[in-house]
Amino acid sequence: GTPRVINAEKSEFNEDQAACCQISIRRREPGLEEDEEWLILCSMQFLTGYYWALFDGHGGPEAAIIASNYLHYCIKQKLEEVVGGIAEARPPMHLSGRCVCDSDPQFVEEKHIHAEDLVVGALENAFQECDEVIGQEMEATNQTGGCTALAALYFQGKLYVANAGDSRAILVLKDSVVPMSCEFTPQTERQRIQHLAFLFPKLLDGEFTRFEFPRRLKGDDVGQKVLYRDYFMEGWGYKTVEKADLKYPLVHGHGKQARLLGTLAVSRGLGDHQLKVIDTNIDVKPFLSCIPKVNVFDFALHDVKEDDVLIMATDGLWDVLCNGEVAHMVRSFLAENRTDPHRFSELAKCLVCRARGKKRGHQWMLDDSREASYDDISVFVIPLHKREKD
Amino acid sequence: GTPRVINAEKSEFNEDQAACCQISIRRREPGLEEDEEWLILCSMQFLTGYYWALFDGHGGPEAAIIASNYLHYCIKQKLEEVVGGIAEARPPMHLSGRCVCDSDPQFVEEKHIHAEDLVVGALENAFQECDEVIGQEMEATNQTGGCTALAALYFQGKLYVANAGDSRAILVLKDSVVPMSCEFTPQTERQRIQHLAFLFPKLLDGEFTRFEFPRRLKGDDVGQKVLYRDYFMEGWGYKTVEKADLKYPLVHGHGKQARLLGTLAVSRGLGDHQLKVIDTNIDVKPFLSCIPKVNVFDFALHDVKEDDVLIMATDGLWDVLCNGEVAHMVRSFLAENRTDPHRFSELAKCLVCRARGKKRGHQWMLDDSREASYDDISVFVIPLHKREKD
Repeated sequence: GTPRVINAEKSEFNEDQAACCQISIRRREPGLEEDEEWLILCSMQFLTGYYWALFDGHGGPEAAIIASNYLHYCIKQKLEEVVGGIAEARPPMHLSGRCVCDSDPQFVEEKHIHAEDLVVGALENAFQECDEVIGQEMEATNQTGGCTALAALYFQGKLYVANAGDSRAILVLKDSVVPMSCEFTPQTERQRIQHLAFLFPKLLDGEFTRFEFPRRLKGDDVGQKVLYRDYFMEGWGYKTVEKADLKYPLVHGHGKQARLLGTLAVSRGLGDHQLKVIDTNIDVKPFLSCIPKVNVFDFALHDVKEDDVLIMATDGLWDVLCNGEVAHMVRSFLAENRTDPHRFSELAKCLVCRARGKKRGHQWMLDDSREASYDDISVFVIPLHKREKD
Repeated sequence: GTPRVINAEKSEFNEDQAACCQISIRRREPGLEEDEEWLILCSMQFLTGYYWALFDGHGGPEAAIIASNYLHYCIKQKLEEVVGGIAEARPPMHLSGRCVCDSDPQFVEEKHIHAEDLVVGALENAFQECDEVIGQEMEATNQTGGCTALAALYFQGKLYVANAGDSRAILVLKDSVVPMSCEFTPQTERQRIQHLAFLFPKLLDGEFTRFEFPRRLKGDDVGQKVLYRDYFMEGWGYKTVEKADLKYPLVHGHGKQARLLGTLAVSRGLGDHQLKVIDTNIDVKPFLSCIPKVNVFDFALHDVKEDDVLIMATDGLWDVLCNGEVAHMVRSFLAENRTDPHRFSELAKCLVCRARGKKRGHQWMLDDSREASYDDISVFVIPLHKREKD
């Protein structure tokens, strides 16, 4: 897999970052004491994982750069903390579902915990750890900014995709497209964000309303009936507009225009510890989450074909191309270039160029005359099939 | 549709309650002032809804009784508050997605709000209103207890199912089974419950740990490595057991045995305002939600067949019969009894009797020798098809 990162010469800086490496997880022999470290070194074995990640920075590229240099190390660390449960025959505290404390079997319950759950937990903890490190690092160097994070890990026959932000990963298989992530934006996480403001109204410092309205309200709406949603509502209701409702809404705008506190277009990611709403003392960070949602694809349950690939890309691609369009391009490109040894990286390049469009006058346009992406565009194409000659 | 409620003579009191009625929603002429009430009465029109609900009480039947007498009235009220948006051609604040304030069109955004969203919002608000009334009523009469609530509303060509608790509704159609609810239990809502304890640790009063472990820990586990989950984890990690981890877990047990604060087996419902954890001053109510999840089935998008039905039942049925078993029984019973005018109520009776089982010695057993349900069992069978002769 080769990353293709490009900013299409449209913005001054490219805030996207990519990372890709092998992760070696040290597996210790069980039952050895700390002072027998030399024995450990002798009997050490390694488990290998393969890692790809995309980071879409905002407010500067710094957070994305730290994350691209550090997240894989956090993942390695967290996997080493649980490697006993993954690799040992008799892991601590009955990972197998059976009791290992024979003294008290009546308390034991079947929780169906598998090695896969430890990898998911390690990824969740690694994102949180990486977020803390970015916070310390940015404060120490007096820098600001944040980034989304989309990380894929191939480990022990399974593909794990961890996502915090609005990047997206999909599997393009011979006969189907499997989404491996969902987007976290102020719109998709409206209820979580509104609920926090309901629990801790001081976070809004009297400057924002937590209610959602169909449009920004103004003075002559006071006393009128207006559609609204509170934190507990998926549906809509009517309320009579009061003066307090004229404040700027906590989550405002629709689709790609939705903003958290008028500031951010994403609701999960790393960094942003120092971010304040402009001209106020309101912190954005309490409303952000650094926790990824992890999706798992088990290779043992699927017959992976030669042209099956994982596509990872920042929102620059998905803003202008839907899953179906990307899948169609992937399949036809790979079918037409079967003998090219660089066909996967060529495909990544091709996807970026398609979303970037062509310059017509002052505008960048797609082939079908829709407007092209003005955002940074980063794409990974990762073949799932192990080729014989590799 | 006819309810069949039974407690199988196994417990002293049946705590299940059922309700079923027609709801008439008063539609006012728009543009009339309050003092023109007599004009309103003249021009009044009604919209009609059909309502079915099941309430599974705990800690006594009182909450379930109040809910069964009152929830439909709350729904009627909340629907009347939004009926303008449902029935008027030019509803307040651009329900159609277009601006009705011509003065300021640039703020208008397309939110795709439909009449359906107002009904969903009305149901969400009705549950909350009903919960408040139960709280006041129970305090005034010095009573305690709570109940789950599963309500179905047929209105304007759509079926709405609102659920707060562990009852379940499914559509059994000719070729498919459509789940219309999901269960809310301490296990399915573990992360929400743990997160609240993380945000407000005082709610646990030092008596509980918010961490989840595979089994209850004890003194000689201190210092050992143990599997655990915190609020942000879907996966598992390891931690070293500390003394504080020996406290009783906030959510403990697996499957039907899972308990919130060692007290409740459900995490959503109505009532329980006075409920304390036994021998402590810890309130359970902050961890409970009275908000339903609402699922919608649009009759216009489906070709409803004569034997298609909605099955609503309390957990007493679903503890011993899965969706597939119920669907099989429904289809074969209705096929065999095509001419019986009471076949839907007979089917409800038949489902209850199947789950109740037969007494063999001291045990109640199902036909296939599995253990029968010892819980209260309530079942609604509601035909979806309008028969010609009706």
